[in-house]
Amino acid sequence: MSYQNIETLSWIGDQHGWLRMIDQTLLPAELHEIDCRHVETVWEAIKTLRVRGAPAIGIAAAYGVCVGLQTIPSDADIVEFKRRLHEVVEYLASSRPTAVNLFWALNRMKAKAESFYDSKNIEEIKVALFSEAKAIHEEDRRICRSIGMFGQELLRNGDTFLTHCNAGGLATADYGTALAVFFAATEMGKKIKVYADETRPLLQGSRLTAWELMQRGIDVTLICDSMAAMVMKQGKINGVVVGADRIAANGDTANKIGTYGVAISAKTHNIPFYVAAPVSTFDLTLVDGNSIPIEERDSEEICNGFGKRTAPQGVNVYNPAFDVTPAEFITGIITEHGIISPVNRENIHHLVSTS
Amino acid sequence: MSYQNIETLSWIGDQHGWLRMIDQTLLPAELHEIDCRHVETVWEAIKTLRVRGAPAIGIAAAYGVCVGLQTIPSDADIVEFKRRLHEVVEYLASSRPTAVNLFWALNRMKAKAESFYDSKNIEEIKVALFSEAKAIHEEDRRICRSIGMFGQELLRNGDTFLTHCNAGGLATADYGTALAVFFAATEMGKKIKVYADETRPLLQGSRLTAWELMQRGIDVTLICDSMAAMVMKQGKINGVVVGADRIAANGDTANKIGTYGVAISAKTHNIPFYVAAPVSTFDLTLVDGNSIPIEERDSEEICNGFGKRTAPQGVNVYNPAFDVTPAEFITGIITEHGIISPVNRENIHHLVSTS
Repeated sequence: MSYQNIETLSWIGDQHGWLRMIDQTLLPAELHEIDCRHVETVWEAIKTLRVRGAPAIGIAAAYGVCVGLQTIPSDADIVEFKRRLHEVVEYLASSRPTAVNLFWALNRMKAKAESFYDSKNIEEIKVALFSEAKAIHEEDRRICRSIGMFGQELLRNGDTFLTHCNAGGLATADYGTALAVFFAATEMGKKIKVYADETRPLLQGSRLTAWELMQRGIDVTLICDSMAAMVMKQGKINGVVVGADRIAANGDTANKIGTYGVAISAKTHNIPFYVAAPVSTFDLTLVDGNSIPIEERDSEEICNGFGKRTAPQGVNVYNPAFDVTPAEFITGIITEHGIISPVNRENIHHLVSTS
Repeated sequence: MSYQNIETLSWIGDQHGWLRMIDQTLLPAELHEIDCRHVETVWEAIKTLRVRGAPAIGIAAAYGVCVGLQTIPSDADIVEFKRRLHEVVEYLASSRPTAVNLFWALNRMKAKAESFYDSKNIEEIKVALFSEAKAIHEEDRRICRSIGMFGQELLRNGDTFLTHCNAGGLATADYGTALAVFFAATEMGKKIKVYADETRPLLQGSRLTAWELMQRGIDVTLICDSMAAMVMKQGKINGVVVGADRIAANGDTANKIGTYGVAISAKTHNIPFYVAAPVSTFDLTLVDGNSIPIEERDSEEICNGFGKRTAPQGVNVYNPAFDVTPAEFITGIITEHGIISPVNRENIHHLVSTS
């Protein structure tokens, strides 16, 4: 199966076309694409996690605005157009109220429309919005490619790396952040192997990462999260690359729960531990990781995750969605503008402020 | 529900009675006991993991011999008795050919019978065998109680400990090894809390440990294995206690996969890490942990564990059943004869050779 055939998100046709996406809820059992010709379909796809991953959600929402405005004829009144734009943006924003990238993309689309309101030419505004959505999509693609190119230099031919959760093409325009490093290394002709943590409770590692790597022909071995320390001790792992949800000014990194344990094991075995993330992931308003709030999720994810109850009724459960890995456990942070290493306040400030 | 009502294994009535056991395959959804009045029922229970855990399997097999000999009348010929005993022992031995304790218990029963062959009194031999089975049961109970009493001294009132997998009453006569420490601390009036790792892939932590602790009224919180490092960093954990499958002469300890990662996290956070195990767990023929073979189990446990396929078809899987924690990560080993600390060759040799 060729790479083009498995794009997470793609726009079919010209601006009168539609958004096509992989339904990630059916992976890995089934590779099924859905065509979003109505804004309601886009909304439902974001809501029910058919598309997930911060960048991918932003791109889907931007295209969703274009789809939503197709119901407005080009000779409509500008007031009616504004009303419909407002309606579409508010509607899409309600699909996942905690996804920061969703609002970022919708605000960018709104600002673009507003900058064209003087012309009162609806066709012109629609063309500009379609270009903006394509630009958001293309920018993410370029960022991921750039992360991949910088990151792949860390891998030698024959290396085996480990990753946790899914920071892959399914979460972004098409190439991922952590997985971009593996894809780029492979494209450069390096023969590598990857161990993928299954990533309890939601198994993004086994459901998505293993699937993505297999699609690209990369040698991947699935393990339970609890096995990472052992394979490191066995000398099987040359390095670790993971993604990031948020990085504080000092380099402390919030990522999927379990990342911190992997980092501890890596340090214990003197294995380099890298974070791959776009510069937009840095939040310099956060002094360190202590300021990052820890989201707790539903206990059912742990007790009842795969169609079968596996814990006693009424048991207490602690289910944090992510953890924070202190900067001292991170060998380097791979961004689209280069690798930050050593990870400290000065190096981060320098890279973020000059990019 | 009182403690007596949830004994893993119990013998009902006099020597003409039967073996009753909890069907652990139905836990935690259902607490169901099965009555084994025929040796075939005992065989099937061991085979299908209705009873699991090395000591519990040994006890079940010993009682299974008694059940199997009930078909022989007391006035039968000694030759016929020997034939039946041989048949019963061979049959039970075939239920789980890799369970060391199964053979240990069966050999002990056979030796007891042989020591009475001169008398040719079948009733006398049957009484002796019933006593021997009860002795095996009672010895395990005493060992577990003793481990609990030594171990509970390590817990202060108000402490929170973490454990991995299930080294509880369900795996032994009734009290467990690692969990015995928590039960004993509670019986001594200490108010404690326990975090239980769910323990992928087979979830003994969520299915069995959480259930056992709840039955005894101990405050237990279930987490995924990947969350242990984070709760340690949050300062929630005062100590760790786990069981052991096999301990080498230098203290390197094989236990359920994931134990090593927990030990690394504990060391990183300066949290004491204890192993609780009977002296019979030491294998002084093993110089260190490198000699312990690593059993690999079926990939389906990871890919298809809960009635739903959660990994791509054909993905490579590595599924080691246990890992080895080096002695330097272990603060102490709690045995029925006292606590070995620091864990080194000399201290182990001394305790094992004098017990």
